[in-house]
Amino acid sequence: MDWIAVDWGTSSLRAWWVGHDGVIKDHRSSDQGMGTLSSDEFEPTLLGLIDDWLTPDAKTQVIACGMIGARQGWVEASYTPVPCTPSQTHLTTAPVSDPRIDVSILSGLSQTKPTTDVMRGEETQISGYLAQHPHFDGVICLPGTHTKWVHVSAGEVISFQTVMSGELFAAISQHTVLRHSVSGDDWDQDSFDTAVDVTLSRPAAFATELFSLRASDLVLGQSHGAARARLSGLLLGMELAATKPYWLGQIVILIGAPALCDLYRASLRAQGVMVDTADATTVTLAGLAAAYKHKFGTLE
Amino acid sequence: MDWIAVDWGTSSLRAWWVGHDGVIKDHRSSDQGMGTLSSDEFEPTLLGLIDDWLTPDAKTQVIACGMIGARQGWVEASYTPVPCTPSQTHLTTAPVSDPRIDVSILSGLSQTKPTTDVMRGEETQISGYLAQHPHFDGVICLPGTHTKWVHVSAGEVISFQTVMSGELFAAISQHTVLRHSVSGDDWDQDSFDTAVDVTLSRPAAFATELFSLRASDLVLGQSHGAARARLSGLLLGMELAATKPYWLGQIVILIGAPALCDLYRASLRAQGVMVDTADATTVTLAGLAAAYKHKFGTLE
Repeated sequence: MDWIAVDWGTSSLRAWWVGHDGVIKDHRSSDQGMGTLSSDEFEPTLLGLIDDWLTPDAKTQVIACGMIGARQGWVEASYTPVPCTPSQTHLTTAPVSDPRIDVSILSGLSQTKPTTDVMRGEETQISGYLAQHPHFDGVICLPGTHTKWVHVSAGEVISFQTVMSGELFAAISQHTVLRHSVSGDDWDQDSFDTAVDVTLSRPAAFATELFSLRASDLVLGQSHGAARARLSGLLLGMELAATKPYWLGQIVILIGAPALCDLYRASLRAQGVMVDTADATTVTLAGLAAAYKHKFGTLE
Repeated sequence: MDWIAVDWGTSSLRAWWVGHDGVIKDHRSSDQGMGTLSSDEFEPTLLGLIDDWLTPDAKTQVIACGMIGARQGWVEASYTPVPCTPSQTHLTTAPVSDPRIDVSILSGLSQTKPTTDVMRGEETQISGYLAQHPHFDGVICLPGTHTKWVHVSAGEVISFQTVMSGELFAAISQHTVLRHSVSGDDWDQDSFDTAVDVTLSRPAAFATELFSLRASDLVLGQSHGAARARLSGLLLGMELAATKPYWLGQIVILIGAPALCDLYRASLRAQGVMVDTADATTVTLAGLAAAYKHKFGTLE
């Protein structure tokens, strides 16, 4: 049977039509993220994207991951506590009126010790990576708005840690006085590298270095590209200082947007860490396929 | 001669009519901060507030401090480099068409070592405090959107450090996912105190504790009052870790909004620091009077 894989985040929706042989027959995306929709719009929005993939006289299975399973989403897919095997978590059935589809949404993961934490969406990418590398033991880092650092062993997620550096960069660069000094797309890599070192070796410097980005513009005419890179570097250095138990002496797999992964890779390598990357879309699809296989016992 | 004292910041305008004997004859305020005005609106806005204080046949001196002297203000009052005596910096004359007033704007202070930094407005409060306590040697801390830590010795500002904790609190609590978990006005003082200790002893924890404010809401149902206080405490703890050279073993004078000063005072006292406070409006007026006296040689 054909089935449909869906990654539905806050700001985007992607769907793949997967043939009974596992080959992708078609794929589509839209900017209709769950964050822009009200509760009665989820089903028509999905149908609008995939309608011509469906068969009138048979049910097609839809397996979805991401924020669509949050409390504000289509249906709340409750968190599975770690440690757990991410491909074997519970699937929650979404309420659907169209007889041509069943929709199952993957659970996120939760943790109460050593820190309280949650993830939703990344568990599918981790599951996909483990489907492709079943003997992997080590750390997976998923850079993004909320970067996840994940300790994996024997096929299970043991613990994880979320760091909001990406969202902090956006909030600080758009909603503080620094917006006047970091605007534009210029980038000075040396300034970034230096800033990572500053807060990695002395995290408290984040508090005192921040306003100097503005003052250096006013007093010294520092370029916006240097200030922008310094802000990013100060955040990443503090993140690396805080997550040292995750990466020190480990192999780290990076999964995320290539440009962002490049920044993490360079900074981790400078600390002597072995780094590899995996394609984000590939592991997302592999994770959705692992969930489909876990539920229906077959991929074909 | 009577004169007029003006404190004109980004979001507010305050004016005092000072009699020839130094007694305040009247005072007014408005929400027409310089940040809301274009360059041709400064003079009419000020006149609208003080018109009936003026004499038709004599010039009244207006002494102003604050962001009104920034590049985007009425006229740029260039920064005076530290070390310097804050009551003796240059006054810049603003362009005025009304023959009844002269307007002089106080310079801000700038620093290039050990860090690049600027202040504008606080130098007047420091000057006013020193006018009242001419033999003060120690540290003045001015909590606010951009908190200033200032080392004062022998009547001079020796060095200073800006920390953006206040603006970070606003940006994070309004423009990140944490807004869902810290909204409202509730406050849990124990959560604040604990959070200060966390980042004061381990500043990097700021990076990892932040998202747990959201996760603790989702997983444990943590109250918004606790999350809001924790966010504030994490920021202040990191600030105190970064500014330890300013307060360790020092007497610290706090000048700012009373509720915010209370948070700083309690946290500093817990570290064994001797703390005193000074009223912000009183020292602002005293600083403007010191500038008037420096320029015209008399207060009477």
